[in-house]
Amino acid sequence: MKKIVIFDSTLRDGAQAPGISFSVGDKIKIAEALDRLGVDYIEAGNPGSNPKDLEFFEYFKGKSLQHAKLIAFGSTRRKGILPEEDNNLKALLSAGTDSVCIFGKSWDFHVTNILNATLEENLAMITDTIRFLRDNGKEVIFDAEHFFDGYKNNASYAMAALDAAVAGGASCLVLCDTNGGCFPSEIEAIVKTVAAKHPSVGIHTHNDGEMAVANSIVAVEAGANHVQGTFTGFGERCGNANLSAIIPSLQIKAGYACIPAENMPLLTETARYISETANLSLSSRAAFVGRNAFAHKAGMHIDGVTKASTSFEHVDPEAVGNQRQYLISEVAGGSAFLAKMQKIDPAIAKGSPEMAAIIQGIKEREHMGYQYEGAEASLSLFIRKKLGKFKPSFKLVNFRVIGERPYDAGRSASARICIEVNGQRVFAYDEGIGPVGALDKALRKALYEFFPVLKDVYLTDYKVRVLDNKHATESMIRVLLESTDGKDTWTTVGASGDILDASYQALVDSIEYKLKMS
Amino acid sequence: MKKIVIFDSTLRDGAQAPGISFSVGDKIKIAEALDRLGVDYIEAGNPGSNPKDLEFFEYFKGKSLQHAKLIAFGSTRRKGILPEEDNNLKALLSAGTDSVCIFGKSWDFHVTNILNATLEENLAMITDTIRFLRDNGKEVIFDAEHFFDGYKNNASYAMAALDAAVAGGASCLVLCDTNGGCFPSEIEAIVKTVAAKHPSVGIHTHNDGEMAVANSIVAVEAGANHVQGTFTGFGERCGNANLSAIIPSLQIKAGYACIPAENMPLLTETARYISETANLSLSSRAAFVGRNAFAHKAGMHIDGVTKASTSFEHVDPEAVGNQRQYLISEVAGGSAFLAKMQKIDPAIAKGSPEMAAIIQGIKEREHMGYQYEGAEASLSLFIRKKLGKFKPSFKLVNFRVIGERPYDAGRSASARICIEVNGQRVFAYDEGIGPVGALDKALRKALYEFFPVLKDVYLTDYKVRVLDNKHATESMIRVLLESTDGKDTWTTVGASGDILDASYQALVDSIEYKLKMS
Repeated sequence: MKKIVIFDSTLRDGAQAPGISFSVGDKIKIAEALDRLGVDYIEAGNPGSNPKDLEFFEYFKGKSLQHAKLIAFGSTRRKGILPEEDNNLKALLSAGTDSVCIFGKSWDFHVTNILNATLEENLAMITDTIRFLRDNGKEVIFDAEHFFDGYKNNASYAMAALDAAVAGGASCLVLCDTNGGCFPSEIEAIVKTVAAKHPSVGIHTHNDGEMAVANSIVAVEAGANHVQGTFTGFGERCGNANLSAIIPSLQIKAGYACIPAENMPLLTETARYISETANLSLSSRAAFVGRNAFAHKAGMHIDGVTKASTSFEHVDPEAVGNQRQYLISEVAGGSAFLAKMQKIDPAIAKGSPEMAAIIQGIKEREHMGYQYEGAEASLSLFIRKKLGKFKPSFKLVNFRVIGERPYDAGRSASARICIEVNGQRVFAYDEGIGPVGALDKALRKALYEFFPVLKDVYLTDYKVRVLDNKHATESMIRVLLESTDGKDTWTTVGASGDILDASYQALVDSIEYKLKMS
Repeated sequence: MKKIVIFDSTLRDGAQAPGISFSVGDKIKIAEALDRLGVDYIEAGNPGSNPKDLEFFEYFKGKSLQHAKLIAFGSTRRKGILPEEDNNLKALLSAGTDSVCIFGKSWDFHVTNILNATLEENLAMITDTIRFLRDNGKEVIFDAEHFFDGYKNNASYAMAALDAAVAGGASCLVLCDTNGGCFPSEIEAIVKTVAAKHPSVGIHTHNDGEMAVANSIVAVEAGANHVQGTFTGFGERCGNANLSAIIPSLQIKAGYACIPAENMPLLTETARYISETANLSLSSRAAFVGRNAFAHKAGMHIDGVTKASTSFEHVDPEAVGNQRQYLISEVAGGSAFLAKMQKIDPAIAKGSPEMAAIIQGIKEREHMGYQYEGAEASLSLFIRKKLGKFKPSFKLVNFRVIGERPYDAGRSASARICIEVNGQRVFAYDEGIGPVGALDKALRKALYEFFPVLKDVYLTDYKVRVLDNKHATESMIRVLLESTDGKDTWTTVGASGDILDASYQALVDSIEYKLKMS
């Protein structure tokens, strides 16, 4: 099995993504997650242009990761000075990593029109800088910026830039499709030419043509042995090559060695963890790791997968730590759904009136704005209710929530609630930040004395979606709540024109689900 | 220029996407938008499996689209019966389209293990079905389901399935990567083989390896002349090939003719319109059409683009109806931002104390949870405030919002607000569905008499994002409001632990922005 070096740049090039702003603490946690997964290099920052990145490198001094090497990133020296006079290179060295990555220009147009240097001086800058870093004991990886566009415009100059990097002592020459617009056929031809001449060639692509993953894979097939990318494709503009798609394709489907085989099932949780930490939601349709990557909706597909999973799945979801899902929707047939209902009531039969009534009920609720595809906990409660197997743990008598301005002491909302548990009325009052928070707190306060197990439950995500654009702030609103007890995680849904009402429904489902499961 | 036929399946295969449920009205509007863009075929439904789709076709009977042909989709006849006895085929004919698309099995494993037919019968089903439809006057496109997986397992059977379609009279043979896991190298080799034998070959890929766009483009380069896909990659699991990325790459960058050249600038608005109608938010990083597709954040990139746009852009954003953006963030340098500020105050200078104060202020606000990258209207107001060029049109004195259960008459919340306009106090009270709706209505009621121009303004989107997971329903919340006056659209932001407070901030910015602009 040919080893492909995996070079993760989530913390450096990924941090260029619109909307991403990592704290040092975030960066440390992400580096540790990447190390557990088993990538080879973690590029963590550019100490020259972002002094805050030094805090990160400081933290890791004297600590060793299990698997990965940390990389500090920087550019070739400025024109007209010696490397040892360049402050950015001094900052790079102060990161204290054994390995560094340096980018330099390989497109003649960029040298003359953006850098305003001569073509010769740029080559000298590449060689000098790398030699200086090698003399300081560093392994140096060279990112040839705009290599493909450069090669297409002036192949001999682009190749000369690589030669300059080799002359300085670079260990790997990484060919960058910086503008992200290359076609696979171009990548293939150019990487083949370079790989015929140089023993260690890397690939770094961007996703401006939605082809970064394919371009990376084509490059490996053409001879590259090093792939740079980010989780989960984060990066400037349309993003970088998505390692969470490249790694499993290369390793599971094409027999290359990217990460330790036993770690592949960590892929999905790593991708989701990094997205969460970046505070960007992972696309549900992300290849391999998305929530819907193995979700089947068409009735015919569900029937096929039930007979043989390879009939509509390109890999086994468990191999990447994801799972198969059968979605409930108008389009879906009944066979997968039956399995779900039989878990709750084994006596229920395909085509029975109970099943028909439940499917009808779900259709009606979905029409109103509920969405059960993403809210399995609410679905399971709904099925129980329809089967007459649900007894509510408590009943709402009334509530009144007030929000006002101005307000005192940081508590902008208050809620009074009255519920009934086993025929007994309980009142609770609480204040909170915002009406939903106040209502949540008052409800929990009322319930704790009866159900102490709820003290372990907390919400991990709260999503609001406006369902139509015709009624502005009075549109139908769907709330999805994700709850956890530290071990399991479940999602519930509420829908209403009133955000308080929708949130209350989802809160109640979250609580009832926990009480039914414990 | 070689013509590539564009076959859109947003309304059929796209509708298989988790979370999508098109109404007939939605489908009609999307078909009209696709027709304006100039695709060749619009596959709009499967009348056999979804009788609701017939309503759509009924609507278009006797009407003609400008450019596109409508397609009804169905499968080959059931085994053991004649085509004329098959109810699904009868439903297909009743759609009344001139062209139809029929899928059949080309992977031997699927024939024997999923369909439970003999290999011979499957071939007869393909030929019979297509001949029957041809005899009924239809143009027939044949989708060879699982063609690539089939070819890899039993090439001669997969080729025999295509021959069976030709024998029936199919006009185009579409090779499907149904499971979405093929590599570009496989697609290239197999399409080449098929295209050497058949004059009209199509490609239909799925995105399970995040390679659907590249696989489509590789297929065209290998000889395919027909591309099936969806806007904006909607589809089962990880989605279908994304036409909003394929069309511009083929046409602008590789010189193929896909849609009328003068329509290419409609691409971005078409993609966004379809996403809106599907009620799925378009990824901001979507190639060509995403909000961030041409958004530059790194200071070095911004400087490069300012010098020469091709330095960090693979195509001109205006060619696809999108626009360049310079993002404000910690990472960004000052040069792009300066231009933005100079629009508001031409006297402001680079490196001036005003500019430094504004950048510092933005950093602080972003740290608190505001995000100006997506909320240009709030950013412009913030800059005005910092420059002392903002005079508020009104002032909040106080408000009190109440939500309660049970409630009467569909009005679950009420709001009382007092504002001051030009030293004059105005009170307003209103009821609404939900606290944000009630507050919005009361605020507008108070303002209308002073600012009648606000009567044209309404909200088109309302987004809520929980910013950290540590405080559940009391987490910092960011609200993004999109407003329109029917002509312009602008986005404002609010951030607070209290959803009412965050919404109120964004509402006020939306109103102030409109009043400043008009």
